[in-house]
Amino acid sequence: MSKPTKSHGRKTIQSTLQPRELMTHRPQLKGAWMAKIITLFPGAFPGLLGESLTGKALKDGVWQLETVDLRMFGEGKHRNVDDTPSGGGAGMVIRPDVLGRAIEHAIKGPPRPLIYLSPRGKPFTQAMAQSLSETQGVTMICGRFEGVDQRVIDHYQITEISLGDFVMTGGEIAAQAMIDATVRLLPGVLGNDESAAEESFSDGLLEHPQYTRPAEWNDRRVPEVLTSGNHAKVAEWRQQEAERLTADRRPDLWEAYKARKR
Amino acid sequence: MSKPTKSHGRKTIQSTLQPRELMTHRPQLKGAWMAKIITLFPGAFPGLLGESLTGKALKDGVWQLETVDLRMFGEGKHRNVDDTPSGGGAGMVIRPDVLGRAIEHAIKGPPRPLIYLSPRGKPFTQAMAQSLSETQGVTMICGRFEGVDQRVIDHYQITEISLGDFVMTGGEIAAQAMIDATVRLLPGVLGNDESAAEESFSDGLLEHPQYTRPAEWNDRRVPEVLTSGNHAKVAEWRQQEAERLTADRRPDLWEAYKARKR
Repeated sequence: MSKPTKSHGRKTIQSTLQPRELMTHRPQLKGAWMAKIITLFPGAFPGLLGESLTGKALKDGVWQLETVDLRMFGEGKHRNVDDTPSGGGAGMVIRPDVLGRAIEHAIKGPPRPLIYLSPRGKPFTQAMAQSLSETQGVTMICGRFEGVDQRVIDHYQITEISLGDFVMTGGEIAAQAMIDATVRLLPGVLGNDESAAEESFSDGLLEHPQYTRPAEWNDRRVPEVLTSGNHAKVAEWRQQEAERLTADRRPDLWEAYKARKR
Repeated sequence: MSKPTKSHGRKTIQSTLQPRELMTHRPQLKGAWMAKIITLFPGAFPGLLGESLTGKALKDGVWQLETVDLRMFGEGKHRNVDDTPSGGGAGMVIRPDVLGRAIEHAIKGPPRPLIYLSPRGKPFTQAMAQSLSETQGVTMICGRFEGVDQRVIDHYQITEISLGDFVMTGGEIAAQAMIDATVRLLPGVLGNDESAAEESFSDGLLEHPQYTRPAEWNDRRVPEVLTSGNHAKVAEWRQQEAERLTADRRPDLWEAYKARKR
């Protein structure tokens, strides 16, 4: 039988669908933040999460990634995972019994938030990334087709989270986006501790414009204040620019920022 | 010299940094929606976009994907693409001259919107996906580090678009999310024309709950109305559920929906 689980990171743990192994407690790297992903496309992970800072942190064991192949929990010899919607309509819906078995398999180990990526959920924010980074990890369910049977969401009291007000062909890219935003906040992942403190949303403002060499490009020069060497003036300019940009582009964030400062 | 461009899809077009080839008009599949991606991680594409519906549409030539490797336009023998921020601070900023050369290379061909994925941009929505799907394609710039030099954004009048109010290690996952949401709206990509019309956001409401077989699971039954065979009652129940969910979870969408109906 095929292996339903694929691991990435310092320690590789695999399990099969053999009943004994399904019952086995699977070791977790001590202190490593665990992302378990229920998906029909396990081969698409780690994808971009295996590159750059998140990829280095994965190799270093700061976090661990395990995919749980939904197909392996399917019905019959074709391992069907979906069926037509009750009441009719287009598309297919993921069966509650199939997804339930995958969830039972995935949630073993230390308790983790159980999240279903869905446009019906609460929109994902930097504050959610921060709070997820303070947990032991996450179990994420990636939907496909018309979504999953509502009874699974009710039974496991699954938290629905949305990447934004748009619809994708599946939850996998959304899962990667949320894991990227979360993993970079884990201790030691960003090269410089200041990076996360100065960026967009960390203080409720959009980030100020950035410049670098060369000093002149296409008749455009770096603003003089930035090359003045006056650190106080630089800080003041950046704060003003951040406030100007936020007020201009995101009145919603700007009102919230002013309310907090009052 | 390495090839800065990698193509996926029915026709594979590659170019090198040889000046002659940089000047060559590169053929585009007639009618194919073109996604050009400027990135430091060309190998991470198509990634999930190569799977499922978007992958099939890519193979069928409904859309085309070309990556432009930013590194190939870098400075010196190490092909540096970034430098320290003017005025000091953490991280690195992508140089305007390097990115400018990559943009000049990428924007050849029929005019396409030029987008920089940035948390400072306008939040991406289903309406944006719809309008992008009605263009000839898109050129996307994936940032890394602390972002790109502001002068490039000003010079090319680049549209900044944000995936949401959170920060990622780079723009690549955001690019994949936006392309996925857009490509599925291209004619012929979804198996069933009804699918896009009935889903979340298409009428400004979140989607109603879905159910499928088995009729009973873990003592939970499919709501009776859905198995009644009464199509009018099913439609009414779904509309009520969509309204209830939207009012409960997204007062912002609910207010906008009611205002439109008045």
